[in-house]
Amino acid sequence: LAMAKKTGKVRAPTHIVSSICDDRGEEPTYCGVTMSELIENDANVGDAISLLWFKRRLPRYATKFIEMCVVLCADHGPCVSGAHNTIVTARAGKDLISCLVSGLLTIGPRFGGAIDDAARYFKQACDAGQEADDFVEGMKRKGIRVPGIGHRIKSKDNRDKRVELLQRYARKHFPSTRYLDYGISVEEYTLQKAANLVLNVDGCIGALFLDLLNSVGMFSPQEIQEVVDIGYLNGLFVLARSIGFIGHALDQKRLQQPLFRYPWDEVLYTK
Amino acid sequence: LAMAKKTGKVRAPTHIVSSICDDRGEEPTYCGVTMSELIENDANVGDAISLLWFKRRLPRYATKFIEMCVVLCADHGPCVSGAHNTIVTARAGKDLISCLVSGLLTIGPRFGGAIDDAARYFKQACDAGQEADDFVEGMKRKGIRVPGIGHRIKSKDNRDKRVELLQRYARKHFPSTRYLDYGISVEEYTLQKAANLVLNVDGCIGALFLDLLNSVGMFSPQEIQEVVDIGYLNGLFVLARSIGFIGHALDQKRLQQPLFRYPWDEVLYTK
Amino acid sequence: LAMAKKTGKVRAPTHIVSSICDDRGEEPTYCGVTMSELIENDANVGDAISLLWFKRRLPRYATKFIEMCVVLCADHGPCVSGAHNTIVTARAGKDLISCLVSGLLTIGPRFGGAIDDAARYFKQACDAGQEADDFVEGMKRKGIRVPGIGHRIKSKDNRDKRVELLQRYARKHFPSTRYLDYGISVEEYTLQKAANLVLNVDGCIGALFLDLLNSVGMFSPQEIQEVVDIGYLNGLFVLARSIGFIGHALDQKRLQQPLFRYPWDEVLYTK
Amino acid sequence: LAMAKKTGKVRAPTHIVSSICDDRGEEPTYCGVTMSELIENDANVGDAISLLWFKRRLPRYATKFIEMCVVLCADHGPCVSGAHNTIVTARAGKDLISCLVSGLLTIGPRFGGAIDDAARYFKQACDAGQEADDFVEGMKRKGIRVPGIGHRIKSKDNRDKRVELLQRYARKHFPSTRYLDYGISVEEYTLQKAANLVLNVDGCIGALFLDLLNSVGMFSPQEIQEVVDIGYLNGLFVLARSIGFIGHALDQKRLQQPLFRYPWDEVLYTK
Ligand SMILES: CC(C)(COP(=O)(O)OP(=O)(O)OC[C@H]1O[C@@H](n2cnc3c(N)ncnc32)[C@H](O)[C@@H]1OP(=O)(O)O)[C@@H](O)C(=O)NCCC(=O)NCCS
Ligand SMILES: CC(C)(COP(=O)(O)OP(=O)(O)OC[C@H]1O[C@@H](n2cnc3c(N)ncnc32)[C@H](O)[C@@H]1OP(=O)(O)O)[C@@H](O)C(=O)NCCC(=O)NCCS
Ligand SMILES: CC(C)(COP(=O)(O)OP(=O)(O)OC[C@H]1O[C@@H](n2cnc3c(N)ncnc32)[C@H](O)[C@@H]1OP(=O)(O)O)[C@@H](O)C(=O)NCCC(=O)NCCS
Ligand SMILES: CC(C)(COP(=O)(O)OP(=O)(O)OC[C@H]1O[C@@H](n2cnc3c(N)ncnc32)[C@H](O)[C@@H]1OP(=O)(O)O)[C@@H](O)C(=O)NCCC(=O)NCCS
Repeated sequence: LAMAKKTGKVRAPTHIVSSICDDRGEEPTYCGVTMSELIENDANVGDAISLLWFKRRLPRYATKFIEMCVVLCADHGPCVSGAHNTIVTARAGKDLISCLVSGLLTIGPRFGGAIDDAARYFKQACDAGQEADDFVEGMKRKGIRVPGIGHRIKSKDNRDKRVELLQRYARKHFPSTRYLDYGISVEEYTLQKAANLVLNVDGCIGALFLDLLNSVGMFSPQEIQEVVDIGYLNGLFVLARSIGFIGHALDQKRLQQPLFRYPWDEVLYTK
Repeated sequence: LAMAKKTGKVRAPTHIVSSICDDRGEEPTYCGVTMSELIENDANVGDAISLLWFKRRLPRYATKFIEMCVVLCADHGPCVSGAHNTIVTARAGKDLISCLVSGLLTIGPRFGGAIDDAARYFKQACDAGQEADDFVEGMKRKGIRVPGIGHRIKSKDNRDKRVELLQRYARKHFPSTRYLDYGISVEEYTLQKAANLVLNVDGCIGALFLDLLNSVGMFSPQEIQEVVDIGYLNGLFVLARSIGFIGHALDQKRLQQPLFRYPWDEVLYTK
Repeated sequence: LAMAKKTGKVRAPTHIVSSICDDRGEEPTYCGVTMSELIENDANVGDAISLLWFKRRLPRYATKFIEMCVVLCADHGPCVSGAHNTIVTARAGKDLISCLVSGLLTIGPRFGGAIDDAARYFKQACDAGQEADDFVEGMKRKGIRVPGIGHRIKSKDNRDKRVELLQRYARKHFPSTRYLDYGISVEEYTLQKAANLVLNVDGCIGALFLDLLNSVGMFSPQEIQEVVDIGYLNGLFVLARSIGFIGHALDQKRLQQPLFRYPWDEVLYTK
Repeated sequence: LAMAKKTGKVRAPTHIVSSICDDRGEEPTYCGVTMSELIENDANVGDAISLLWFKRRLPRYATKFIEMCVVLCADHGPCVSGAHNTIVTARAGKDLISCLVSGLLTIGPRFGGAIDDAARYFKQACDAGQEADDFVEGMKRKGIRVPGIGHRIKSKDNRDKRVELLQRYARKHFPSTRYLDYGISVEEYTLQKAANLVLNVDGCIGALFLDLLNSVGMFSPQEIQEVVDIGYLNGLFVLARSIGFIGHALDQKRLQQPLFRYPWDEVLYTK
């Protein structure tokens, strides 16, 4: 290889570097932990994520929180872009994986991405010691809506139950809720502008994940920044919503739905 | 719509039928259960799957078993087709979803599909009251390897720890382990042929899932058949392994690996 | 490698065998033909397909026919499953490739697959010397609609222009049109049943592709069967329609369309 | 819909706007042109692309150039990321579309994206009247390699045949080759730095596409900028390379290759 590289025959080293799972021994290990050990310790999905993504054994209150997030984001009905594409593909008679994938590909800046963005902006503002009003007005000047703020139905006097439950859990179990508190101070300010500008479930998860990463005392500031930059929380949404998309695909197959065709009269044919 | 259909303008009814999740109310419901209720009841990922795929509140021993399966199938190293394609895509600098999807598309008959097939064959043979030797010899005549049987390393005297743990859990919590027992009778017969023809982890999960569906007393025989025919267990593998694939994509990004190119001298250029 | 294989370390040989394109020399070759040679000979897309899929230099009348098929199948409006999913993904703000792929994944048995199936059934029936009436009645008994037959709008007295044009081309340039003639004899019989049971464009392409493969005198009967079994014509549809899907994605981006959400009142929420 | 939107029930208008293809009439039209007309005019794939992507009937010299680009980019061997993933998926026994898609998802900033980037940078620099040396040194200061420049094997005295052929075609048929000339002036400067810093085939296509868009006199400056911003040329590469990826998938199926597993000893298992 060395010679081939030197003589310019290959552009990149060909072997692969991998650090999360070793399958060479008696049983696979996730970041050094054997599967038997996992089962014996009653590990849940949060623990598997903790080892395979974060490469750490996060404490139980943290993995339990990850589970809660996966459960809460698992589905949000058949009308959102992703579920819709999964349903259309299922109705075209395609296999389960094609259905799931056709849906997953819609996840991005406009659908599903608010958690990561909320974490990014809350982190930056809070770490910089920016006051909530300053932060909100600054976003307004840049023409960006504050991610994690706003709800179509919920409001000041009609809070989102999920946000309450997550907060209650965090206040009870997390050593610190600094970023959540920051999110709430932002909400206090935006609520003065309009009654529906509450901290929504995406914003709540985004803020609490920052608190989790800081609370556990296992990540350096650089490592936390890396998690936010690379976008692990997007991964969490993708994994969670896969449960829903697979559910929608199975649902259509069970209901034996025929080929979907979008109706002509709903299309504006233009030049 | 009716008129449009009659006049032949549209081929298929355009509206969508959906039965797993309702997002129209105050908070989304999974098969009628509100998210608050889920959180209050300390629901885990197994519960979300139970509601969104099986449309039932499975008992705790069952949802706990589903969690165990997800944890055990979450990853199996960087060398399998799916992890490999995810790694190659991550090294091409693509977004997390593209990486995940490129890996998922390799799951199928040759990679990841043994659980579903094991369930299918064990169910058919066991329901028909076929003796283990008859079943194995019948498969041999058809030229099909018994799915769920065989291991590259494990053998009679060096059992797979995961299989032991799953069995122990099921014997303790499942009302019946009829299919597992059938799988073991198959193993007893195949072990006479070769020491490595043990019941493997895929076979064990396949058989135990049948036991779960039968034990909980919530599925008619037709419904169980439908689960096996549609291939829900494939969905379980896909969901579980998504954890690993996302982990591999994040890993490559963290390790800042360059573009992968397969080496010329590993390719046989032929006519 | 040999030792690793023997000691059971690797399950499958790791190197790759490849036969269509060699990139090791001064310039890449498609099945032995250099790119310069291609350009000098005024090669079109049909020639590239001919070399990379069929591994032959098909005569000009054949590559010209392949081009015609790609042009004719390039798009069929925004309402079909595939274009729809591409549009939804584009409106979610995703990159071009995600949009294209989300659409491609809907192609299969119910959308886009009629060409391959028409070729399969026409070939089998025609090779077996089955009379058209026998063939159609046999399909009816099996409960299968004859692929390649039937149109929602076109009929006996209002033929599909494309079918006419393809036929005219083939009768002028193909040495033999045996399978097309068989398709027409099938149409003659089905037209007695209903006026809209014409040979449609999919059936026409399927039959003519068989004629092409037989006419050029470069494929053994086994090789032709392999083309039909593997499903090359599905590939032709996929490639052709990619032009349309990419077009739809670019169109939505140009039109700056917002996130698509399927309307609640078009969904039947059921149990 | 209007009321639903007003009462906040739906976030986005539900109907779809589409402008490239109308399937409602007797025969589909691509941007107003019927399929019959296309066939009668001997339209090639370049014409279909021209109508469905650019919404114009480009002159023959332009559609012929598009064809040449598709032919030249159709494949580049089995070792590049995309072909490799397609091959791995094919060897996992998956359907043609899954194979193609798994490969397509690797196309992006590091693989296949040089044409678009070359067009972007050449356009910006040339439009701004920047001298070649200024441009190259400016890129160097920003730490960006000039896209479209450099080749692993080719050099000053051993030019790439494809680049020569494309140039010859353009000089003969294009009214203007302003951007190509700019690219060549860049090459002249970079060749003084190293003998392998030639204008490569990506750079040549990128520059010539700008010349095409300017030459045909059918695009306003804003429209040309939009083409470059949205990234149509990426679409061209994606479409072209799909021919190769489909070819690789068919190739593996024909060669009946078994499941691919990356070898353990090529992996560096690390912490
Ligand atoms: C959730 C959301 C889409 C709800 O939107 P909505 O109910 O349709 O609200 P509207 O678009 O009608 O906005 C009403 C007003 O509130 C403002 N507003 C809404 N969300 C805002 C936010 N997050 N930050 C600042 N201002 C906001 C709007 O600019 C608008 O003001 P205007 O009338 O002066 O222009 C919206 O709040 C939002 O985009 N939030 C940020 C993204 C997010 O967190 N999404 C999570 C849900 S997926
Ligand atoms: C898991 C597996 C791939 C291990 O294979 P392996 O160690 O490479 O075994 P070999 O291919 O060397 O087979 C050795 C012998 O056992 C036989 N054998 C292996 N698995 C068998 C099975 N499941 N049923 C019947 N016979 C089997 C082989 O036919 C072979 O016999 P032969 O030498 O007379 O031809 C293989 O057992 C198998 O395919 N099992 C079924 C699929 C499955 O359950 N996979 C789960 C793991 S993903
Ligand atoms: C193209 C097609 C979908 C048009 O369908 P349509 O106009 O909606 O026709 P209908 O479904 O109303 O069928 C009318 C009658 O013709 C029969 N019929 C339609 N297509 C038939 C076919 N290909 N073979 C045999 N009978 C057919 C139907 O069974 C029905 O008979 P019935 O009333 O006794 O049940 C249909 O002809 C078909 O499925 N063809 C085969 C697939 C194909 O070639 N598709 C290519 C277009 S993508
Ligand atoms: C095509 C390419 C990958 C070939 O690279 P290579 O032969 O491996 O060249 P190297 O990476 O060894 O570079 C050799 C020197 O030339 C310089 N160089 C290479 N390409 C350069 C470019 N496009 N612009 C400026 N300098 C360049 C390198 O910086 C290096 O200089 P250094 O030794 O002072 O650091 C490279 O030229 C490149 O990245 N080009 C731009 C992208 C592109 O057009 N790709 C099209 C082919 S897919």
